[in-house]
Amino acid sequence: MARAFLPPLAISLGDPAGIGPEVIAKCWDQRADFGLPPFVAIGDGHSIAAIWDGPIEVVDDPRQADAAFDHALPLIQVPASAGDTPGHPSVGGAHCSLDSLELAVGLARSGSAAAVVTGPVSKEQLYAIGFQHPGQTEFVAERCGVSPGNVAMMLAGPTLRTVPVTTHVALRDVSERLTTALIESRARATLRGLQRNFGIAEPRLAISGLNPHAGEGGNLGREEVDLIEPAIAALLAEGWRVTGPHPADTMFHARARANYDAALCMYHDQALIPIKALHFEDAVNVTLGLPIVRTAPDHGTAFDIAGQDRADARPMAAAIRLAAECAALRTEAV
Amino acid sequence: MARAFLPPLAISLGDPAGIGPEVIAKCWDQRADFGLPPFVAIGDGHSIAAIWDGPIEVVDDPRQADAAFDHALPLIQVPASAGDTPGHPSVGGAHCSLDSLELAVGLARSGSAAAVVTGPVSKEQLYAIGFQHPGQTEFVAERCGVSPGNVAMMLAGPTLRTVPVTTHVALRDVSERLTTALIESRARATLRGLQRNFGIAEPRLAISGLNPHAGEGGNLGREEVDLIEPAIAALLAEGWRVTGPHPADTMFHARARANYDAALCMYHDQALIPIKALHFEDAVNVTLGLPIVRTAPDHGTAFDIAGQDRADARPMAAAIRLAAECAALRTEAV
Repeated sequence: MARAFLPPLAISLGDPAGIGPEVIAKCWDQRADFGLPPFVAIGDGHSIAAIWDGPIEVVDDPRQADAAFDHALPLIQVPASAGDTPGHPSVGGAHCSLDSLELAVGLARSGSAAAVVTGPVSKEQLYAIGFQHPGQTEFVAERCGVSPGNVAMMLAGPTLRTVPVTTHVALRDVSERLTTALIESRARATLRGLQRNFGIAEPRLAISGLNPHAGEGGNLGREEVDLIEPAIAALLAEGWRVTGPHPADTMFHARARANYDAALCMYHDQALIPIKALHFEDAVNVTLGLPIVRTAPDHGTAFDIAGQDRADARPMAAAIRLAAECAALRTEAV
Repeated sequence: MARAFLPPLAISLGDPAGIGPEVIAKCWDQRADFGLPPFVAIGDGHSIAAIWDGPIEVVDDPRQADAAFDHALPLIQVPASAGDTPGHPSVGGAHCSLDSLELAVGLARSGSAAAVVTGPVSKEQLYAIGFQHPGQTEFVAERCGVSPGNVAMMLAGPTLRTVPVTTHVALRDVSERLTTALIESRARATLRGLQRNFGIAEPRLAISGLNPHAGEGGNLGREEVDLIEPAIAALLAEGWRVTGPHPADTMFHARARANYDAALCMYHDQALIPIKALHFEDAVNVTLGLPIVRTAPDHGTAFDIAGQDRADARPMAAAIRLAAECAALRTEAV
């Protein structure tokens, strides 16, 4: 394993009033059971202390985290305004979550951290402080100098990986947001990501249709003929192993899943319904197309249960594990 | 069990050049293993003989089928034009499949058959002979004197039942096809169907949103606020147990599925992706809102493998079994 040679992972706590601090603390508690490598939490230590009485060791640099990790949760402190309590988000907490994210990305870009794992933020709170991006993914892309169109948001589970071409778009607007160029760029980001992050030399990508039955040759919608088939032709011409457009409803059963390494889907729910139906507890959000490895658990801040010791740490543990695996594969490939 | 008192089920063969005849013959062969009650096939016997050398007994009436069922596959002969071969559909075959369907529905309406199970037809072929309906479901509804808006197409599997509000509609047109009235009528058909066909006295219906994250309060689409929430309010006022609008991606994991008896979805793939991801081999298409019980296996004619003894009979067996169960529950309720 190359993992032993990796620096620690940087994990942003996300919104201090959400369940991010709790699931990260639980991951440290169960680091042996979950099989987790050393990591450093980045955010406001008070948000952890408010819901957890385990040992925290404040460090300045991820390099100090390796030594601390055995006996305490290493933390790089990013102060939040006083008064944040679990379940009660605030503007101060939003600033803290954004500062933590930015620092985590910077540490990974500089090589001090092996990868970034991001805790859940509140978009509503971030919008209130002037955040302009649809989500953390686009913010991370910008901080890495990559156009949002050239990254891909993958949901990765044990038997299925899906990538939506369009993400947080109203369903009625999906069709007009789809372009052949966007389908191609998401496909390339996915294919290269499968090579780089997952070590698959010749990745196979299944591309979905947009319409029921993939449009039935144009009878139930033209996007397959007008937009998706030209993208597939271009990708095939570049030598990639892509198939489609496939009817989305018959792409995700066990036998179909065996035929591809990832499914490229046209919109949010087309990608997220199957992954969450099959792998709700262990699907991980992976951003492909970045110069760094970034993963995240695929859940939100869950303010309604924050501070009640009810949050399930398995998704965060899966995100940390996958980040380490991807980082190790990248290191090996260098 | 009330099953013993039921007349046989009527099973239309579907397109004679498809896999319908093969899977129905296989169901008779394995009737004991599959646990199937007596049924009568309706269609062209030549299409069965072309791919199967088992015994066929031509009958005139389903009442004769009970006696025959032990030693032969009972068949009501509906002649097709000569020359139909597996994998090569024809206009004559389309006429035969439609005549068979119509006869099966008539037998169920008259009470001679306990229920209708429909084999797969080729819509392309049916359109070529002037068929005006989107599919068999709407044709059966019309023959039963029910408006297509008042029936619901349910996909029923062992741990999930879903019903799409809109069905064979291009994705870009889904939003404009959705109305509060249509959502309500599909919901009522589903709820009454759960009572009548499934014996659930107080059914629980989970209603999905249309947009990612159910529209995030209007930020990602207005249909939840403008169309779906008013429908839910009206259904609640009538005393039904409905919830929603739920984000579609978090409705279908095991824990969520335990909270409802059926999920009402806004469009085709939203309903069919999860059911086929989870229950590809044993999901059954059930038409709710009819005066008769009608089920169908959820697969097509599969012309590409017809006549090769490769078709999987499990979906047809599941459709026959569920038709018998629903018919028995209806009989008990009478």
